Amino acid sequence: MAEENTVFIGKKGVMSYVLAVVTQFNQGANEVTIKARGRAISRAVDVAEIVRNRFVQDAKVKDIKISTEELEKKEEGEGNATKVSAIEITLAK
Amino acid sequence: MAEENTVFIGKKGVMSYVLAVVTQFNQGANEVTIKARGRAISRAVDVAEIVRNRFVQDAKVKDIKISTEELEKKEEGEGNATKVSAIEITLAK
Repeated sequence: MAEENTVFIGKKGVMSYVLAVVTQFNQGANEVTIKARGRAISRAVDVAEIVRNRFVQDAKVKDIKISTEELEKKEEGEGNATKVSAIEITLAK
Repeated sequence: MAEENTVFIGKKGVMSYVLAVVTQFNQGANEVTIKARGRAISRAVDVAEIVRNRFVQDAKVKDIKISTEELEKKEEGEGNATKVSAIEITLAK
């Protein structure tokens, strides 16, 4: 159930993810979790802020978690980059 | 008092800021707040994770806040970029 209301932030434009989050709220979700890792973390914060300031103004930041994930394969092209920071931002109405 | 135990994340390498945070804990601080905005947000999460996983293992994430700040001048070179997301991560022993 948790995975249903989750939006993973990748390399698309911020508004793509804003739309995905807003759509989940509009379809009846009371909570949506925004997940990102590495450099996409900044974009995850942008998405959360834009959603709650512009589109779903009764949504509040319920929880923010940060963690470190081990990458199975090297994604960044850096020699030792096998760990990456991650964030989970949960918005709730 | 709050400002004393604050580390602002800029464009230096991650370890510069890790050292700044660790130094504050070693000088007796019980709490250190890591602040960043825009693209430095990802680096702020890296700093918090490296500090608590490698250097100050009794430090916990006490609070994380996200917000939107108005920039007084345009910093990013984008036409309408007058707002920027920000994060504050408070680590506490």
